Amino acid sequence: MSTNALHLDIPAGVPWVDFTREFDAPVSAVFEAHRDPDTVRRWLGPRGYEMVIDRWDFTTGGGYRYVHRDPEGAEYGFRGVFHTIRENEFALQTFEFDGAPDQVSLEFMWFEDLGDGRSRLRGRSIGRSVEGRDLMVESGMEQGMAEGYERLDEIVGS
Amino acid sequence: MSTNALHLDIPAGVPWVDFTREFDAPVSAVFEAHRDPDTVRRWLGPRGYEMVIDRWDFTTGGGYRYVHRDPEGAEYGFRGVFHTIRENEFALQTFEFDGAPDQVSLEFMWFEDLGDGRSRLRGRSIGRSVEGRDLMVESGMEQGMAEGYERLDEIVGS
Repeated sequence: MSTNALHLDIPAGVPWVDFTREFDAPVSAVFEAHRDPDTVRRWLGPRGYEMVIDRWDFTTGGGYRYVHRDPEGAEYGFRGVFHTIRENEFALQTFEFDGAPDQVSLEFMWFEDLGDGRSRLRGRSIGRSVEGRDLMVESGMEQGMAEGYERLDEIVGS
Repeated sequence: MSTNALHLDIPAGVPWVDFTREFDAPVSAVFEAHRDPDTVRRWLGPRGYEMVIDRWDFTTGGGYRYVHRDPEGAEYGFRGVFHTIRENEFALQTFEFDGAPDQVSLEFMWFEDLGDGRSRLRGRSIGRSVEGRDLMVESGMEQGMAEGYERLDEIVGS
């Protein structure tokens, strides 16, 4: 089990969440685990959820749509577009939960090479409003992210 | 000349700008002037600028790329993706200026029918940071928008 922890920064009065997460794996492996839908499906989201991907085109101008199914069978759909993807470096996407239409957030991710086969993912997720950001946090965002990255650890071997 | 003024709201300490602009034209005409690239080219941006559109696919999952050329011939390129487009109702896009790479903003527009052949455009543009938002405002955003909407008035006949 990795001891690389998820760090969230949720400043008061602004609509964004910042996060960092380090991996005992090269930046190319972490990037590839975001690009390849067959890999994404195995780690994105909380433990115990099944992910069904309708579309995952991790390229500049591409887009995605998927459904998470929780252990009780309830389904949660998400979709967005990829504004920019730069290999092993940067990804920028929109993000929308079907259950909160038009409450779209903008998500920046920087993939950083730390050397010695280690890497860091740094992100900023910006909601439409401070209230929308707060709802996203209260919905269990941190636990879902933390469990997802632990699953990613298991895939990239850290 | 219309007396419909552009109203901007630029609160301190948050990364967004809100605006409203009314038109003496039906909401369908204002929406169509955003959808059709041949029309967009005639109004988007400050007076005296030429707009060359490489791509304008105003649909959900579509995207755009264009260049503004100022009267001195200097060129300014912009691109983005359309997350959601709903006819006569709503548009949500990303927006990036080539000169500020990765400083992408997220732009919401609501098209509102006011009856009697009038309409209102309401928008929120959210930058990556408060500093980025402030730079966007200082770059002449308000004048460019105001002149663009005056040109749009001339097209939709208000």
